[in-house]
Amino acid sequence: MKLAVDGMGGDHAPKAIIEGVFQALESSQDLEVLLYGHQEKMQPYLKEHPRLKVIHCEDIIEGTDEPVRAVRRKKDASMVKMAQAVTDGEADACISAGNTGALMAAGLFIVHRIDGIDRPALSTTLPTLDGSGFDMLDLGSNADAKPENLVQYAIMGSIYAKKVRGIENPTVGLLNIGTEDKKGNDLAKHAFPLLKEAPINFIGNVEARELLNHVADVVVTDGFTGNMVLKTIEGTAGNVFSMLKEAFMASAKTKVAALLMKDKLKDLKSKMDYTEYGGAALFGLKAPVIKAHGSSNAQAFASAIRQARQMVEYNVSKTIDETITMND
Amino acid sequence: MKLAVDGMGGDHAPKAIIEGVFQALESSQDLEVLLYGHQEKMQPYLKEHPRLKVIHCEDIIEGTDEPVRAVRRKKDASMVKMAQAVTDGEADACISAGNTGALMAAGLFIVHRIDGIDRPALSTTLPTLDGSGFDMLDLGSNADAKPENLVQYAIMGSIYAKKVRGIENPTVGLLNIGTEDKKGNDLAKHAFPLLKEAPINFIGNVEARELLNHVADVVVTDGFTGNMVLKTIEGTAGNVFSMLKEAFMASAKTKVAALLMKDKLKDLKSKMDYTEYGGAALFGLKAPVIKAHGSSNAQAFASAIRQARQMVEYNVSKTIDETITMND
Repeated sequence: MKLAVDGMGGDHAPKAIIEGVFQALESSQDLEVLLYGHQEKMQPYLKEHPRLKVIHCEDIIEGTDEPVRAVRRKKDASMVKMAQAVTDGEADACISAGNTGALMAAGLFIVHRIDGIDRPALSTTLPTLDGSGFDMLDLGSNADAKPENLVQYAIMGSIYAKKVRGIENPTVGLLNIGTEDKKGNDLAKHAFPLLKEAPINFIGNVEARELLNHVADVVVTDGFTGNMVLKTIEGTAGNVFSMLKEAFMASAKTKVAALLMKDKLKDLKSKMDYTEYGGAALFGLKAPVIKAHGSSNAQAFASAIRQARQMVEYNVSKTIDETITMND
Repeated sequence: MKLAVDGMGGDHAPKAIIEGVFQALESSQDLEVLLYGHQEKMQPYLKEHPRLKVIHCEDIIEGTDEPVRAVRRKKDASMVKMAQAVTDGEADACISAGNTGALMAAGLFIVHRIDGIDRPALSTTLPTLDGSGFDMLDLGSNADAKPENLVQYAIMGSIYAKKVRGIENPTVGLLNIGTEDKKGNDLAKHAFPLLKEAPINFIGNVEARELLNHVADVVVTDGFTGNMVLKTIEGTAGNVFSMLKEAFMASAKTKVAALLMKDKLKDLKSKMDYTEYGGAALFGLKAPVIKAHGSSNAQAFASAIRQARQMVEYNVSKTIDETITMND
């Protein structure tokens, strides 16, 4: 299996990316990596490896670049060439920790949509308290969505949950402001009956308050709401943890408590840790495109590579293609 | 000042409601209360008070009642008669901890909208880490909104923040999935330029992640998103606190830590405590209609009464009316 990697994307690139690549190469003997990036900048972290090929790219897409314009103009950027390798059949999937918008544009304009998929969706597996996690989509690939888009999101999420996460008959919930059937905004109200008819295990509306309690295996919503909820979870959890840290550092007495709680707090933080879950995947493209978190360290990037590998191995894109064709 | 109170709404009615009423009567010497509810059920908690008048109502609107139908049919329900007292000029404002949808319907059909306000909005002051709080609206009065609605929400929120919370020139943010001007869904993109022109202190887009960091004094969004974000904050904070509690109870060692942290943890929880902030107000009606939290205890209900008092005292409804007329 061959994966194309953007060596220049993310806060800790190229170091963390390259370290992540080597971790992945070591743990998967069938993996070959095409690494795209600026040779000189990557050189300090590189070593020879029989299954690693480095391709020099003069350009970089920055986090501040306007996504669509950057992808269209910076033809020699590592992210663009990485996506092109997938389209050219040189790689089975691609992974970047760079500019999210640009990666979505590269997916759309270079890797291309599966026929029948109107909008690709950004999805990630989020932690739940019981450790099983849930896939939420769309996390912001398209701010606005139509009811039919949500049905496609539900089908794609179900296929991923089944193929990659091994859940037999994944439950799908519609994110809503109440659990009653007729609740919600126009979008939710119109999506509900369509989801009921779709070839998925639809369990009805689910509330944001219950997300961390594993209320469904797959949760669908429009990209605006999905992104909003994701950031609210991150922001709230982050803030509570900061307040907690402050409380533990307040006095000699509380510092003793911190010592006594050390292991437990570590467990607790890792339960809410997104890095273990890999990156976010763009569903609905002809091949897997994975967005690793911008702040990825080597381990997080290796997880994102593993996720791409699994998506290829379990034929996620092809299964989506076949299911959508059948369902049309 | 005369306030009308629904004695039968909320999880702990009528006991907590009546206790809250007596707390409020004690702390405000100019307050008179009209208490609507089932005489027999309220009797055990009642005592004579010169500024309390009890009005018997045969009917109750339950939490499970379909809101609009309940308000239209149960003419003798405590919530309906409480709202009617406001319309009849017998009370200056009304407060209920009952069925939220029904209270919004009662506000709309009995108390009535201010001329020029297309949609009333549900708003509450949410805690921030620095203790100052922010007003978010709409929290679900209308699931869908038009750009012009958001402008009215912003004006109403600003008036409340200024009049009741005493903030000189309250900052207003548009809740969005990025801070750049052109970000968002269709609604946000169209609301942005209108908010820029509105007679408010608009500071642009704000992200959900930053809400608890006091990023603005007033935050506007549609009711679907507002409700979603509110429940996500509550759900995430609640879940982190439960995990924390579990961690503290895990062993003899962690129980010692819990003892050492007791005061600090109490501080921390009270920082995130919504009961101290009173209830949610329906903005845009001819008189203040306050929704106390369904789980209100006596203290929380007394806070909601105080909030209604302040809205009357500071002429919030009249100021909204004048501002909207001027702005038309």
